[in-house]
Amino acid sequence: MAPVVDVHTHIYPPAYVSLLRSRTAVPYMRTFSDNPSAGERLVILPSEDAATTTARGRPIGPEYYEEEEKIKFMDKHHIDISVISLANPWLDWCDASEAASVAVQINDDVEEVCSRHPGRLYAFGTLPLSAGADAVVAEIKRLTTLDHFRGVIIGTSGLGNGLDDPALEPIWAALQETRQLIFLHPHYGLPASVYGDRAAEYGHVLPLALGFPLETTIAITRAILSGVFDRYPGLEMLLAHSGGTLPFLAGRIESCIAHDGHLKQANKIKGRRSIWDILKKNIYLDAVVYGEAGLKAAIEASGKDRLMFGTDHPFFPPLEDEENEWLSVKTNSAAVSGVFESDIKSRDDVMGGNAVRVLRLE
Amino acid sequence: MAPVVDVHTHIYPPAYVSLLRSRTAVPYMRTFSDNPSAGERLVILPSEDAATTTARGRPIGPEYYEEEEKIKFMDKHHIDISVISLANPWLDWCDASEAASVAVQINDDVEEVCSRHPGRLYAFGTLPLSAGADAVVAEIKRLTTLDHFRGVIIGTSGLGNGLDDPALEPIWAALQETRQLIFLHPHYGLPASVYGDRAAEYGHVLPLALGFPLETTIAITRAILSGVFDRYPGLEMLLAHSGGTLPFLAGRIESCIAHDGHLKQANKIKGRRSIWDILKKNIYLDAVVYGEAGLKAAIEASGKDRLMFGTDHPFFPPLEDEENEWLSVKTNSAAVSGVFESDIKSRDDVMGGNAVRVLRLE
Repeated sequence: MAPVVDVHTHIYPPAYVSLLRSRTAVPYMRTFSDNPSAGERLVILPSEDAATTTARGRPIGPEYYEEEEKIKFMDKHHIDISVISLANPWLDWCDASEAASVAVQINDDVEEVCSRHPGRLYAFGTLPLSAGADAVVAEIKRLTTLDHFRGVIIGTSGLGNGLDDPALEPIWAALQETRQLIFLHPHYGLPASVYGDRAAEYGHVLPLALGFPLETTIAITRAILSGVFDRYPGLEMLLAHSGGTLPFLAGRIESCIAHDGHLKQANKIKGRRSIWDILKKNIYLDAVVYGEAGLKAAIEASGKDRLMFGTDHPFFPPLEDEENEWLSVKTNSAAVSGVFESDIKSRDDVMGGNAVRVLRLE
Repeated sequence: MAPVVDVHTHIYPPAYVSLLRSRTAVPYMRTFSDNPSAGERLVILPSEDAATTTARGRPIGPEYYEEEEKIKFMDKHHIDISVISLANPWLDWCDASEAASVAVQINDDVEEVCSRHPGRLYAFGTLPLSAGADAVVAEIKRLTTLDHFRGVIIGTSGLGNGLDDPALEPIWAALQETRQLIFLHPHYGLPASVYGDRAAEYGHVLPLALGFPLETTIAITRAILSGVFDRYPGLEMLLAHSGGTLPFLAGRIESCIAHDGHLKQANKIKGRRSIWDILKKNIYLDAVVYGEAGLKAAIEASGKDRLMFGTDHPFFPPLEDEENEWLSVKTNSAAVSGVFESDIKSRDDVMGGNAVRVLRLE
């Protein structure tokens, strides 16, 4: 039987935790003196940083930064291998002069963490994007010398101007050349105005449930429209949360391209690769979509051999009853089992076999 | 065999065309003196109104406002019945003092159009939303006296503050009481900043392919979170473009609600209706999603008995070769046929049977 592999699971390694604790602006970690009983808090998003709330950000504990907690979580949920990645917002905010050395430190930290758990932990690397393309390319090349890295995680802003930025060309080229998978993950969401005046009443639901996947969808669509996958046909990208909403919208995007007078005049319709083709040759999807409806679209769009189980740990912890399996994990694994019914082989492929093959986890 | 029914098809009736021609700001219709050869143009979106483009807006011809063109289109594509609706942006922009009488005029126009084609045309009504709830409720009640109306079309802004606006309560109540289906349709998209600096290079693709469905998704999620379907369990809503992306994201939204500390503290998690329950009892989806991936998610989310074929005519006309069937129509009908394979009964239900039942088109 194939091992169970979690391709979407985050950690804050020691070097990153030190940084967060030394900061006073988002992102940062701190115990607030006016509410010490709330414990240490992690504030990632500006919207979580309102001084008017009694408990800013979210509780943060050892599950975010201690490797033993990751292993315990894996054991509890029968996960054999985790491919860990730094959680958002990575080093997007990092001073340009420091980003390269911080990235080295973080990746070396993570390499050590993986080394201490042979066969159980692999990783996606952190890139010093705020330092510019040269520094990023250097770290991409250095990652190939570390045993446990299988790709890199990046946000949707790229070097600051999105994934259709021509300044990213050397980075795409280096990633294609070194055959490292890009794990594309959201962080920025959408402008708060779209959620309306009552958004705060709904907790974090609108920015997390909608902002994140819609951000991913826009980012990958901009990359596709700018021809990234035409120029780098060997590029491989794993999209968080089953592609945001790309599998569902791929048909509409294709139709809008085919009917666009401007693109036709610019002679950009014929000869381009279709989104369906890119989905089936360049894109992988995690199975973090919490239901069979989304999974069915993902399978139809990219294929069941390109879908990989994930948990998003340590995010979405249970609100109570921590002794049992996490609801967020159960929902995703039940959806995988449900969608494949008696096709055990495909279920096992999604739960781990595909990740072993794609990420060379032998 | 069930008739083929198009539930997503627009028209600008005479009263609305006169209004558009009399205006000089978006939305408006005009032949530009600096480019008369481009013919009469329809400018719906502020982003289409740039004076720097040689051809603003989109070409508009008789297919937008002449009923015979609708019938010709239906005949060419073997569509037996169309349920026509005013296209966006409806009367959202209309002066409050005029909106009520304009809505009456438009709905009376449409009633006459339908009467001239017995058995072939039905309609969704236009509401004077800018005039406030009382005027809207009055027109909802008046629509029940017209033979061919089966519901109303509304945008995502409601009375101006979105679909979680408490001021909408009497409108939801009137729609539930009179059993009129609400056809929810996007218009406003997302703030242009999310598309980045290169958006114009991609024609209208980003705002049309992503902005529209993402807007619908946010709007319906705000309605659900505010408890509209808990308070009005008899409300029935048809979501344009297969729900925007709601079927794909429903699982993630449910998970985010179940894991939200704020909602738990506010005691808002238990007792609420789940999105899956609302999808299966209150929501209908059109099949305007241009591919099997989206359709599979829609079927899983709402059920094949709640999915209804549509064309979005007269939008997405072919860029060439107008003599043949439209690509946009073929793509959607092929997806319906493809997804049901040999299950002819379900295919025919989606192509028309469901609409006949739900909209009482006997």
